[in-house]
Order: sequence, then C-alpha cells, then structure tokens
Amino acid sequence: MSSSTVITNIATLVTNDPSRHGDSPLGLVRDAAVVIEGDRIAWTGASSKAPATDKRVDAGGRAVLPGFVDSHSHLVFAGDRTEEFNARMSGRPYSAGGIRTTVAATRAATDAELEANLTRLLAEALRQGTTTFETKSGYGLTVGDEARALRLAARHTDEVTFLGAHIVAPEYAEDPAGYVALVTGEMLDACAPHARWIDVFCEQGAFDGDQARAILTAGKERGLHPRVHANQLSYGPGVQLAVELDAASADHCTHLTDADVDALAGGRTVATLLPGAEFSTRAQWPDARRLLDAGATVALSTDCNPGSSFTSSMPFCIALAVREMGMTPDEAVWSATAGGARALRRTDIGHLAVGARADLTLLDAPSHVHLAYRPGVPLVSGVWRAGVRVV
Amino acid sequence: MSSSTVITNIATLVTNDPSRHGDSPLGLVRDAAVVIEGDRIAWTGASSKAPATDKRVDAGGRAVLPGFVDSHSHLVFAGDRTEEFNARMSGRPYSAGGIRTTVAATRAATDAELEANLTRLLAEALRQGTTTFETKSGYGLTVGDEARALRLAARHTDEVTFLGAHIVAPEYAEDPAGYVALVTGEMLDACAPHARWIDVFCEQGAFDGDQARAILTAGKERGLHPRVHANQLSYGPGVQLAVELDAASADHCTHLTDADVDALAGGRTVATLLPGAEFSTRAQWPDARRLLDAGATVALSTDCNPGSSFTSSMPFCIALAVREMGMTPDEAVWSATAGGARALRRTDIGHLAVGARADLTLLDAPSHVHLAYRPGVPLVSGVWRAGVRVV
Repeated sequence: MSSSTVITNIATLVTNDPSRHGDSPLGLVRDAAVVIEGDRIAWTGASSKAPATDKRVDAGGRAVLPGFVDSHSHLVFAGDRTEEFNARMSGRPYSAGGIRTTVAATRAATDAELEANLTRLLAEALRQGTTTFETKSGYGLTVGDEARALRLAARHTDEVTFLGAHIVAPEYAEDPAGYVALVTGEMLDACAPHARWIDVFCEQGAFDGDQARAILTAGKERGLHPRVHANQLSYGPGVQLAVELDAASADHCTHLTDADVDALAGGRTVATLLPGAEFSTRAQWPDARRLLDAGATVALSTDCNPGSSFTSSMPFCIALAVREMGMTPDEAVWSATAGGARALRRTDIGHLAVGARADLTLLDAPSHVHLAYRPGVPLVSGVWRAGVRVV
Repeated sequence: MSSSTVITNIATLVTNDPSRHGDSPLGLVRDAAVVIEGDRIAWTGASSKAPATDKRVDAGGRAVLPGFVDSHSHLVFAGDRTEEFNARMSGRPYSAGGIRTTVAATRAATDAELEANLTRLLAEALRQGTTTFETKSGYGLTVGDEARALRLAARHTDEVTFLGAHIVAPEYAEDPAGYVALVTGEMLDACAPHARWIDVFCEQGAFDGDQARAILTAGKERGLHPRVHANQLSYGPGVQLAVELDAASADHCTHLTDADVDALAGGRTVATLLPGAEFSTRAQWPDARRLLDAGATVALSTDCNPGSSFTSSMPFCIALAVREMGMTPDEAVWSATAGGARALRRTDIGHLAVGARADLTLLDAPSHVHLAYRPGVPLVSGVWRAGVRVV
C-alpha cells in the first residue's frame, strides 16, 4: 500500500481545478492542504479539514502550485554560444553560424557528453520547479544523429519531439527537397520509434508551408502527433497549418494576422509563447493579451536552447509574460502549468485535481503572484515529482 | 596568522583590475587562480602559477567575479504589497496607498519583525552573490521610527542611509515645510549617529529642488554624505543638485536632459540605474548607453523594496541592463560590482586587486557573460565574504 503525505499550512494553493475550488481558473484555496497518496493527488481543501495521513509537511504559510510544464525545449546539444550572444548584445559583428554551430558541436559529441549536458539542464530546471518537460532533436540533422538525440531524450522524458526539420542540414544546402525527402523517409523511419511528436521550423530560411505540411503529414502517418515552430520571425503559414493539422501547439506566435488569431481561437491548437527567445534576441514580444482576448489557449515555455534562449527558468518566463505580454500574474501561472499540459495534450499534469500526478512546487513566498512580483529571485524551495520530494 | 586559500581552475576570473590584467575594464584572466589570505585578496593570476596555500578549492572550470555591490535598497520594512502589484499588472483599479501602506505596516511592526524580514532578504541576496549592500530608512517618517530603522540596518551593514525625506509623512500632509524642518532638525539629530549617508526623493509629489538642497545640506553639516533619488518619474533638478553637492550617487536617472548627462559625465557622482523598478512598474527604461557614451560612471542596483521593485537579484538586473538599457554584458557586470563600489565611494570592494576585501562569487557557468546569456537561472553556486565561504 502506498504511503500518504499531507502538506498543511499552505497560504495559497493553486489547484487549476476550478470545478472544485471557486470560479477562477486557478482554483485557488487559501489556508489549504493537499494530500498525496503514492504518486497521485488524493485530496485538496482547507487545512483545518485535512484528513489524517502517514506523513505531515508544514508549508509554513507559503504557496504551493502544480509543477511547471515546460512544453518546448531543445536540450540535446553540445557546446555553447556565449560569444555569439555577447557579440549580438554588444553590437559587435560576429560571423555566427547560428544553429549550424550547435549542429557541428552536437555531432562531434559523445553520447555521454550529450547526456551529461541534458541531465545538468534538467536538474537545473527541476530546482526551478519544472516537473515535466518536452525536448527535441534538431541539432543532429543526419539519420544517426537525430535518432541518437531522441534515444537520449527518451531516457529522461516521455515528451520527445522529432525535429529533423529544424533547418536544412548543411550537406543539403543546395538540395532542400532532398533533405525533406530524407526527413520524411529514412530519418523518419529511424526516429519515429523514439518520439511522440513531430515538429518543423516553418519559417523563411527554414521550411516553407508546403514542406512543413509534407513533413508533418508524413509524421502523422507514422503515429507522431504534430507541433509547429510557427510565425516566430515573420508572418507565415505556420499557425494556420498547425490548426489545420490539429497540431497540439503552435509555438512562438510572435507575428500573427487576425486570421491566425481566429484560427487559434477556433481550434484545439495551443499558442505556446516563448518570451525567453524575445528577451535574448531583443525581438518583438508576442501579444498574449490579443490571443487571450480572442479566446485562444496560451501556454508559456522556456524554449531553452544555447542560441536564442538559454534560460531554463519558468518563473522568469512568467515574470516576462506579465511585464511584456499583457498577461495577468494569474494567467501567466496558469499558462506555465495547465497551459503547458494542454500543449502536450496531457490531462494528468498541470493541475492538482484528485487523481492528478502529484507534481508540486513549494514557493518561498505566500502566493503564486510573487513569481511575477519578485522577478529573478529563486523562489522555488521544494519540488515533488510523482509524489516524491526531489528538491 | 591567518590561513590562506587558493581557488584554482577558474575558467574566467573577473578582477576589475585592468592595471594588472589586460586592458579591458574587467581585468579578465582565463585559466586563473585567486589566493585569499585572511579576509583579503593576496594574489591573482594564471592557475598554473598559483602559489602554495593552506587550502585549495577547485572551481571546476567555472567563473569567479567580485561579489555584487548592491548600492541601493530599502530593506527595513514590514508587510508586502502583492495585491497592489497584482492589480497594477492586471489593469485592475486598486486604491493603493503606495509608500504610505508600507509606512503604516512598518510603524506597526516590532523590532524583531523588522529585523527578521531584513535578515531574510539579506540571506536571499547573499545566495545570489551580493556581498555588500546599502539600505535606507524611509518607511518610518517619525523621529523614533526612522532612528529605529537605521539602528536595525546598522547591525547588518556599514552602508546605512537616512531617508527621512522619502515622502512627506502623512501627519504633515498639509505642512510639508514643517516636515522638512523636522527632517533637518530633530529627526536628523536622532538619525545622524546611525547612518553614513543622507538621501532624498527629489521628485514631483515628494520633495522639490529647494527642499532637497536644504535636507542634503543639513545632512552634510552633520557629517552625512549625500546620495539622491533623482529623475525617476520625470525631469527635474535632482541630478544636477546631486552633482553640485558632490553626492556619491544619483539614483534612477530615467529622465535626463543633455545637461543632466553632461553634469554626470563631468562630476564624480555615479549614475545608479535600477532596472528592477522599471520592470515592475512597466516604466520607461533608463538609457545606460547614453550615459556611458558621454563618459559617466554607471552602477546597477536592485532598489529592492516591496512597492516598485521587489527583487533582490543583481543577476536579474544585469540581464535587464543588457536587454533593455544598451549595456554590454561586460559593462553590466562591471556596473554591478565596481560601479556599485564607486557609488558607495569604497575602494576596498567591487574588485579583486591585491589587498581588496575577499568578496567573491562563484558561478555555475564558465564565464560572467552567462549572467546575461542565461537570464533568470540561479547561477550563483558559491560566495565568499571577507574571506569566509558563506554559500
């Protein structure tokens, strides 16, 4: 029989379970307790009414919320791009290779090196409250290197995404059609067994709408579900293609027409916003307010990668979303938890309803609002994943 | 005899000692070591040439820099203003009392409550690499409450600032001249023994140029050296008054005329920029680039306070300064260390020249650039203060 734990004396509990707790999407409970049985949530409610359990943890008047769900990251890579970042932010010219720099370093790395870097970043994210993360291939761009990235990622998460179509591999620079044929053929054969998702960078300079459609459709036929890097750097067909193909998520969504917003509001596809990328490239912020007001579902994620967004901090993304993207603190916290779960089509995480996976974050603060109110401060002081305290 | 420690295998050492190490203001040394003897720096140089010492610490290929010098904070207070922040960022009306809310809570608090809050925030700042901080009164606004704040602050830092002139005390709302007379009379008598600095909030709605001059001049006559909250919310006389009175620092500097910039460039007064305040109030960013290009000395600081900037994170301020204020990563790191020391007229901190106080921060990253390259990530993994490892 699994053991039970009650966390009591929680000043603010975010359940994301409004059907049980109030009418705000966050399902807030004040002076709350939560009961964990095994790896699941067994009960939430007023601290004074908490049932007896085997163990008791006193939250000391602090806040508890669902673990963050980081639904977009690129963590299987080698090398870093400090000098490229430094030059960009210093206004100095630098012959940056961009993604290609990381591709070369990743191909040259051993499995052990790649996995050590991956686990280092995962531990860092976990300490900041991230209990579920998606991660992608996309720095291999050969059949073997892409499959290797996915195999390594699958050791650490169920949410693995095949992104052979990150950019056209350098070897195919003069033959992009040949590369699309590889991605939809031999590479897909090698990668599909290791992934849940297929993704494509639909952007000028990467893959156009027709190429993206061919790649995502081929993936669907192999049982991979689509998600799309869409409308990051310019207007384009990515968002509407994502909705048309019922992608779980259209990621970035920085440059949107009214038709793009309407498509997101009318479909099941989540708009995943990645403010770390705009922060680290001094780019225009995505307009979360516009999407929310139209009725779209918005997720927040880090986009953690060594080129354009080398942050693993979901709290930082929440603070940026409030400062720069028109989200309220409540909306940003929802998007970083329940929103991320929707972007992964997961119903077992991102909330603390009875039966949910017991993924929780304890803040050194009395309320979830402090994630925006106290920007940059490492507030996460405890993390439970599947019922086990890991931080 | 004091013991000696060498920290070896430092990938990047920031000394801020260009006379000894290269011609960049940061005085960078790669593959470096630093020797601590007692509470002082005894040697810096190539790891391969490090002298023998009693103890040896392997930095593991990470970066070491001087501890951050946070030259502007407001840490003696009670209560928080979560709801005011939440309403502001959510576009909801809220009858905020602003500073007055904190004044009421601070007056009502016991000494023990105030000191517990202060030490909690200091510990939080220390974990993020801040080894020197200045802090102010300004939430008491009576003779007794101001003196109490300074006494409590002086138990924890030498850099204590009398800010009776934060706002006009509520009791003097109809008699601001009477409040200035109190600040420059009885309150100054009670406070001067406990402080090193005198500060005034020179701003519309607070104190005008004539009032500020009277207050700062009275403080100087009592041996307090001036620093000024200047030109935060609007153009005004604060910056030029600060330079005229040889204030150590003019803080905020958000709204500057060309004459203000020229004054700062021509005097000894440091321009202390506080991007946490602009972040948390969605205000216009100060233009660090303009100040640097004119030849002014720029410091970065948190302005940590419960109303307009509730961050204790110097790394966060560095990341903002690079993203939003036109600073290079090198400049921002210099301003958060050596710049802060200049703003406190201290020569013993903010750098790692031989003889400096052994205040060091070890990052979980190979270079100081990562403080901007990896925004929001808690990178500080070790802190020495006066030669003692405290984190």
